[in-house]
Amino acid sequence: MRDAFHEELDGLTDRLVEMTRVVRSAMARATTALLDADLQLAEGVISKDAEVDQLFAEIEATIFELMARQQPVAVDLRMMIVALRVGADLERMGDMAEHVAKIARMRHPDSAIPPELRATILEMGHIAERLVTKAGTCIATRDVSTALELETDDDAMDKLHRRLFHVLMAPEWKHGVEPAVDVTLAGRYFERYADHAVRVARSVVYLVTGNRAPQAQG
Amino acid sequence: MRDAFHEELDGLTDRLVEMTRVVRSAMARATTALLDADLQLAEGVISKDAEVDQLFAEIEATIFELMARQQPVAVDLRMMIVALRVGADLERMGDMAEHVAKIARMRHPDSAIPPELRATILEMGHIAERLVTKAGTCIATRDVSTALELETDDDAMDKLHRRLFHVLMAPEWKHGVEPAVDVTLAGRYFERYADHAVRVARSVVYLVTGNRAPQAQG
Repeated sequence: MRDAFHEELDGLTDRLVEMTRVVRSAMARATTALLDADLQLAEGVISKDAEVDQLFAEIEATIFELMARQQPVAVDLRMMIVALRVGADLERMGDMAEHVAKIARMRHPDSAIPPELRATILEMGHIAERLVTKAGTCIATRDVSTALELETDDDAMDKLHRRLFHVLMAPEWKHGVEPAVDVTLAGRYFERYADHAVRVARSVVYLVTGNRAPQAQG
Repeated sequence: MRDAFHEELDGLTDRLVEMTRVVRSAMARATTALLDADLQLAEGVISKDAEVDQLFAEIEATIFELMARQQPVAVDLRMMIVALRVGADLERMGDMAEHVAKIARMRHPDSAIPPELRATILEMGHIAERLVTKAGTCIATRDVSTALELETDDDAMDKLHRRLFHVLMAPEWKHGVEPAVDVTLAGRYFERYADHAVRVARSVVYLVTGNRAPQAQG
């Protein structure tokens, strides 16, 4: 039987997992909005980002209140510090989805993504979804082996990100500057989203093992 | 007379101020490297970023150790939470300077910045230096009025950032895709650097007043 304090900690975990669901859905819809030039879908992602911010603000307030009231030590303290960091990363992932949706909105009714890059962007969106879903599993199960899988998925994302630049800079590129700028920014947002998911997984590893992994750079 | 614990907290403040100096210097040198196509300067910024990461790692370790040993409450606890967040923002500012330096290195011996945008990039670099210097003042003095000044400086940065896109997208742009991609990314890095400086100032306001300001978006 868990005491009231540890039930509150479990509640924090549940809310962080809920955040992964919300920011996964946001990036899935933002990717579709970008590829389909769907203004309504894009607007939906943009307006819903406030919910992600609110979720994180509530988590932060709960942690500060618990810290002040319970004066946690050792593993409980570490859990709260990690929850703060994980929440901040998930909140940024919501921002990245919002930024992708804003590119879709800005170019509507055109699609910001030229035909030869649509498959790459679609794949980046899929990897982003896979990464955040696995990050949610990590948070819920504290399984270190799942955390390691995220590193591999992130390598795949980096490879696609390099591919974008390869296509942009090639002499065959015929779309001019505006789509190049859009693709550059969209690519950066997908790559940052993936980096934040990796940071979440590394924070879980730290929680379980006490070992600090180097933070994802980007 | 301060007790040993509060002397350690003062030491944390000093180290955060030291981080602002290091990341100010990094962005100043990165901007010069970008404008002058100075490979040696760029390499210096890139290799020195590990020092910023190390500074932050030491600050984090100190905070975790103090939290575990002292079980701080109220204002001391809040100070530590804020120091963690401020350190993380400063560490990211170091990354942004490194990214700018990497653009300079990638395009060497050419300059990545076309002539008609050099003044804008120079001005973005100056505002970045001003922002981080004021952020250092905020940390050292906990002066809320300085914190408010950063919001105005950040508005100036956003205006220059929009100017970059205006020039890139204009029909007069004759430099093609590669410089457009470089300018897009460099602009993003300066703008993110500024946003993190604003977050630092807002964290100081939170420390002093207990009021959470909305986090800088970007």
